[in-house]
Amino acid sequence: MQATADTKTHAIDEQTVLRKRMKKIKHKIAVISGKGGVGKTVTAVNLAIAFAMQGHENRVGLLDADIHGPCVPKMLGMEDEKLKVGPIGAFPARGPLGVKVVSMAFVLAGKEVPVIWRGPLKMRAIEQFLSEIAWGELDFLLIDLPPGTGDEPLSVLKLLPEMDGVVIVTIPSEVSQNVVGKAITFSRQLKVPVIGVVENMSGFVCPECGTETHIFKTGGGKKVAQEYSVPFLGSIPLDPRICEASDLGRPFIMEYPDSPASKAFMEIVEKIKTYIQEREKQSSNETGDK
Amino acid sequence: MQATADTKTHAIDEQTVLRKRMKKIKHKIAVISGKGGVGKTVTAVNLAIAFAMQGHENRVGLLDADIHGPCVPKMLGMEDEKLKVGPIGAFPARGPLGVKVVSMAFVLAGKEVPVIWRGPLKMRAIEQFLSEIAWGELDFLLIDLPPGTGDEPLSVLKLLPEMDGVVIVTIPSEVSQNVVGKAITFSRQLKVPVIGVVENMSGFVCPECGTETHIFKTGGGKKVAQEYSVPFLGSIPLDPRICEASDLGRPFIMEYPDSPASKAFMEIVEKIKTYIQEREKQSSNETGDK
Repeated sequence: MQATADTKTHAIDEQTVLRKRMKKIKHKIAVISGKGGVGKTVTAVNLAIAFAMQGHENRVGLLDADIHGPCVPKMLGMEDEKLKVGPIGAFPARGPLGVKVVSMAFVLAGKEVPVIWRGPLKMRAIEQFLSEIAWGELDFLLIDLPPGTGDEPLSVLKLLPEMDGVVIVTIPSEVSQNVVGKAITFSRQLKVPVIGVVENMSGFVCPECGTETHIFKTGGGKKVAQEYSVPFLGSIPLDPRICEASDLGRPFIMEYPDSPASKAFMEIVEKIKTYIQEREKQSSNETGDK
Repeated sequence: MQATADTKTHAIDEQTVLRKRMKKIKHKIAVISGKGGVGKTVTAVNLAIAFAMQGHENRVGLLDADIHGPCVPKMLGMEDEKLKVGPIGAFPARGPLGVKVVSMAFVLAGKEVPVIWRGPLKMRAIEQFLSEIAWGELDFLLIDLPPGTGDEPLSVLKLLPEMDGVVIVTIPSEVSQNVVGKAITFSRQLKVPVIGVVENMSGFVCPECGTETHIFKTGGGKKVAQEYSVPFLGSIPLDPRICEASDLGRPFIMEYPDSPASKAFMEIVEKIKTYIQEREKQSSNETGDK
């Protein structure tokens, strides 16, 4: 009985600490996908860097909350980083342009170990972990959630209060569109606003002859966004250098700022900022704050 | 108390029925991936059809056990199919070449509904569902597991006794190789043999000029297979017609039997059959059955 009461008290403490810490972060955006492998993490990483490039150096955080396949450290060349632990909590590692990075990979033993944590214990561990991170003051925190619409993204999203919204990443194929529908329904059920849909892997231009091939078809992202009346944020073309840069641990958007894909990331960030401004205006009107 | 005892008895009954039904299936192969979006389902579907094409018409089953994104029916043009329920159980729907198909999608309400089932109840529902399927006699059953190495593939794999082994699907990028390592460790911990690694999306040949581009790099699947001393089963090239055919609900391997990707699927099936024969020989030697 004693143990249960203790656990409960700790859980409440952690929620309070987590909420207090999250309040210092102006905007929180989750990056989700109805299914894995659509480039959710590549998108989250490049968006975080794009935010930093657009006047928010040292003021952007990136939380890699993908429990089973945390790839952010690998993509940012931060595989050997650890959290620095001090008396008030754990401090994020610093990535390019001062982006503050925390990854589940930092607490997992070896990179080949599958996390066979189960059920309620797992979420307690994550909650505790999240409440211990001293993010400091941030303009934007991007959260790379586990893929899908199952228990894990659900539980992690529930742990993180007051999100500005979610960005849904998809690939253009029809099979993937059904899955985007699920992600939208999922966000709505959790009452988290949908900022918009990003279509990744949208057409490939042959570097030899310039012919564009739609390997995974095209237009699916826009179509599904219209169908569900959510904004369409943009298309990111397939570019072999994205995979190369990610494997080398260098942010693609910094390596190839003039590429069509980098421009697409930049435009998506502008659209997200506009969305947030509109939303703030709306809510200040509603509360008569004006 | 009564309810709990009843539930327990039912669970044991279902396990017995499930085991009995699974005994009529000669070989059971799970298709897994360390992460989603690598083409696990496309691979499972085309392998199932390839088995049927290689002399096993009407003797192949395909179980779509992906709870959150069951895509098999869409890829086989069977979205409107239902399970036929009779006194002894539920009968699989019939796909091309008599492949018997059962999908979690057949029991889910609408295609946009995210399955926010949680924890133990979910697995009970799946166990009950699996025990009710009257597969009949089959040579091969392919099981498309949920992606990743988390609770879901773990729980589903535990429900299915006596697997011949798993086929691990990956894409060639380095980031994905770490994840394959996890999938191999995962299989070993569950004591399910690894039949081998399939590398999907392995290079793209421009239909205009013939130039091959390795959009997701190349060779990663072979490299990781060597590293972990598991067989490498083959590489499937990127082909826009795979996505097109899948979206139209037609098995790619039947539509384009002469394409390099189809030939790759056929060779993989031959390697799987050889693996199974070798394994049977070994175990009959060990039991002195020869």
